[in-house]
Amino acid sequence: MNDIVKTLEDIVGPEFVITSKEQMESYLIDETSIPVRPTPSTECILVKPSDSNQISAIIKLANEKGIAVYPRGGGTGLVGGAIPTKVGIIVSMERMDKIVVDKENLMAEAEAGATLGQLLKAADEAELSFPPHPGDEGAQIGGLIVCNAGGARAVKHGVMRNFVKGLEVVLPTGEILKLGGKLLKDNMGYSLMHLMIGSEGTLGIVTKAFIKLTPKTERTLTLLLPFNTRHEALKCVPKILNAGVVPLALEYVEREVMELSAEHLGEKWIVSGKVFLIAILAGGENEVFSDAEKMSTIALENGGLEPSIAERRDEQESILKIRSNIYTALKPRYGDILDTTVPPSKIGELAEIIDAISEKYSAYIPVYGHAADGNVHSHVMKEDLEKYDKIKEEIYKASIELGGVITGEHGIGKIRVKELYKFLPAKQIELMRQIKKAFDPNNILNPSTVLD
Amino acid sequence: MNDIVKTLEDIVGPEFVITSKEQMESYLIDETSIPVRPTPSTECILVKPSDSNQISAIIKLANEKGIAVYPRGGGTGLVGGAIPTKVGIIVSMERMDKIVVDKENLMAEAEAGATLGQLLKAADEAELSFPPHPGDEGAQIGGLIVCNAGGARAVKHGVMRNFVKGLEVVLPTGEILKLGGKLLKDNMGYSLMHLMIGSEGTLGIVTKAFIKLTPKTERTLTLLLPFNTRHEALKCVPKILNAGVVPLALEYVEREVMELSAEHLGEKWIVSGKVFLIAILAGGENEVFSDAEKMSTIALENGGLEPSIAERRDEQESILKIRSNIYTALKPRYGDILDTTVPPSKIGELAEIIDAISEKYSAYIPVYGHAADGNVHSHVMKEDLEKYDKIKEEIYKASIELGGVITGEHGIGKIRVKELYKFLPAKQIELMRQIKKAFDPNNILNPSTVLD
Repeated sequence: MNDIVKTLEDIVGPEFVITSKEQMESYLIDETSIPVRPTPSTECILVKPSDSNQISAIIKLANEKGIAVYPRGGGTGLVGGAIPTKVGIIVSMERMDKIVVDKENLMAEAEAGATLGQLLKAADEAELSFPPHPGDEGAQIGGLIVCNAGGARAVKHGVMRNFVKGLEVVLPTGEILKLGGKLLKDNMGYSLMHLMIGSEGTLGIVTKAFIKLTPKTERTLTLLLPFNTRHEALKCVPKILNAGVVPLALEYVEREVMELSAEHLGEKWIVSGKVFLIAILAGGENEVFSDAEKMSTIALENGGLEPSIAERRDEQESILKIRSNIYTALKPRYGDILDTTVPPSKIGELAEIIDAISEKYSAYIPVYGHAADGNVHSHVMKEDLEKYDKIKEEIYKASIELGGVITGEHGIGKIRVKELYKFLPAKQIELMRQIKKAFDPNNILNPSTVLD
Repeated sequence: MNDIVKTLEDIVGPEFVITSKEQMESYLIDETSIPVRPTPSTECILVKPSDSNQISAIIKLANEKGIAVYPRGGGTGLVGGAIPTKVGIIVSMERMDKIVVDKENLMAEAEAGATLGQLLKAADEAELSFPPHPGDEGAQIGGLIVCNAGGARAVKHGVMRNFVKGLEVVLPTGEILKLGGKLLKDNMGYSLMHLMIGSEGTLGIVTKAFIKLTPKTERTLTLLLPFNTRHEALKCVPKILNAGVVPLALEYVEREVMELSAEHLGEKWIVSGKVFLIAILAGGENEVFSDAEKMSTIALENGGLEPSIAERRDEQESILKIRSNIYTALKPRYGDILDTTVPPSKIGELAEIIDAISEKYSAYIPVYGHAADGNVHSHVMKEDLEKYDKIKEEIYKASIELGGVITGEHGIGKIRVKELYKFLPAKQIELMRQIKKAFDPNNILNPSTVLD
């Protein structure tokens, strides 16, 4: 590896080639929970290019020498996708963080290293909106795209894929491709762009994207619907969606984790009820209130307790802060966070099965999820790690039997590859492998991820 | 070919194997204009399977013998994509036309041979809605998906791709794959489903799909905004979208073609003004009227003439009927309909360039389009066929220079393959070719289309 340092310095400038372990530490891990996190290689070089031509030169060099390349975004992944497990070059996108908003076309042109936080800010400043909230605001655009990130606010507008209209990509063989554009319709042959979305940094390095923005909505409102039983809450979800209400988000949480999260924040969760649906509504002034009323009526008719509406921004933020801190509060305690997704109508059934699994293994399995998306995050806690494989296996099997998948938004990364192989037909894996080979004949780009 | 007739009869039943030319005629062409339509082979066998197992058996036989297979939907394509140009087996999906609506999951499970008309009806009967209107109502679901159809009503909810959540596909090698499901989130490796969408029947035969439906909107309303000049009309489009109005459709039409279409229908187009924006608004009662008001104000402030609102269903239908009959009225007279798509803000510029081309070649080039999508249909008329290549070339170049593509919704089919090769980088074509080879090693599925 030492022989390529000089060449890399020539490409990106000596100050942007890092070989010191100390300065590289935070680039070797991501948000994957320690018990399941893959071990990084101890012999990587970190480079920080400033444009796609530099990335092309780096990748050509790596391809020629057969050295692994690990694209690096915000490092907020939960399945080890960004962890460099082999000797290789880590290509951090952090210096490529420009965002230009094109107001006329309602489109952001964002470099891959810009963060979700920057994108939300840029859209807001242009008096437009980027409606989804696919994860941590430190996540970078490139990572959000190649992981096809989801998050809570996908009910109304869909996941990341729906917002990506164009990409600039550096291929593992060094060519720079421009796919799509500021275009709302594009049928120029096979969609390599949609193949790139969700490919988890294994088919190319996304360097720039055109991202669709929407007009700002007049009003948002947070509605809290408490229930005494999980069954009552979850059976309301299809009723709400069928009543013509399409919230931005419709979350399911349980008292125990909300209390834990509130405590973690030094606050208290004082709403009565055992389980809760939390909806974020966005739209016109009349629309959000009439939607809130419809939802409240449905909840009350189906065993719900007194709903509460948060109109003021601070009230809304307080609820959503506790909701989004569940992850942080649980983080030190859990061993792995699962991401199974089923048809939304089956989420209640899945929750019952998880309860039974919890009982069978005497394990506390906190569950919360993006209810309207059928996306359930169940946690295997650290104290249950010796039962981890069995619990995971049972939850996976149940989800598949209900017509679901083992991952709806977190992806495969490096820790779910075995399960990908297990739950997909061999032919499908073979096709994926051949696609990988077409794009990356020497298997240098993020090896050990998805397909090797 | 005669030696396989018996085997095909064994697979689908003798009454569903057709070898008579007379009974096959309508299966050999599609809606492509005659001057540019590819010549079909005179030696095809037409089969009408009833399920995906039969299709798998047919395709295995064809793959073994190296015979071409042409999947056949509604035959509404405009680029010859469905025309069997080689000796082969035409696989008509017409018998596979069941639709089941799952109200709880807001999802239709549709066999590929069901028509758009059937889907609209099934959704309506379930008190749900399928918002886009991607073409002729005789188009079949399979065709809409593999062509990633667009149409007028793509402004608010996007094109066909956004509505496809799961597919059953028979591969050219005979395997039956189930991709996705009744799922709103699914990150199980590379998205073969999204690769299949837009692959124009060359990577697999779609046999079934899960299609997302939405709640029914309370109200639709059609707004007609007349202008004296094209420039005035088109510059309003980004202003409207920036004002927070997201119509279901926002169409641009000119007086001449509207008169022609009205005449064709035995009616009259009596609205004053030279060019028109036609918007379909859908949503809550208050929302649609407030949106119509916003749009009218913007139009009037930018040189627009008196807007008119059609609230009643019959009034709305009358306008939309004339709009949608432009195609039918022009059909006997045009030689080819182009489908270039540019960033929406560039549509005015493109229209000016087409005007200049029209003048340069003394050719009447009627233009209309899906304004908010930047999707412009310009027609080269039959009387100008000797200038067709040059006119097309200039319109294509202009669209590409404006950041666009040569096809936004009609696709490549068999008549735009040369241009696909011309306007995409060689590396992108090479990757598409390798993908085709991975799926269809013997190149039997819809050869001469997209990639051969």
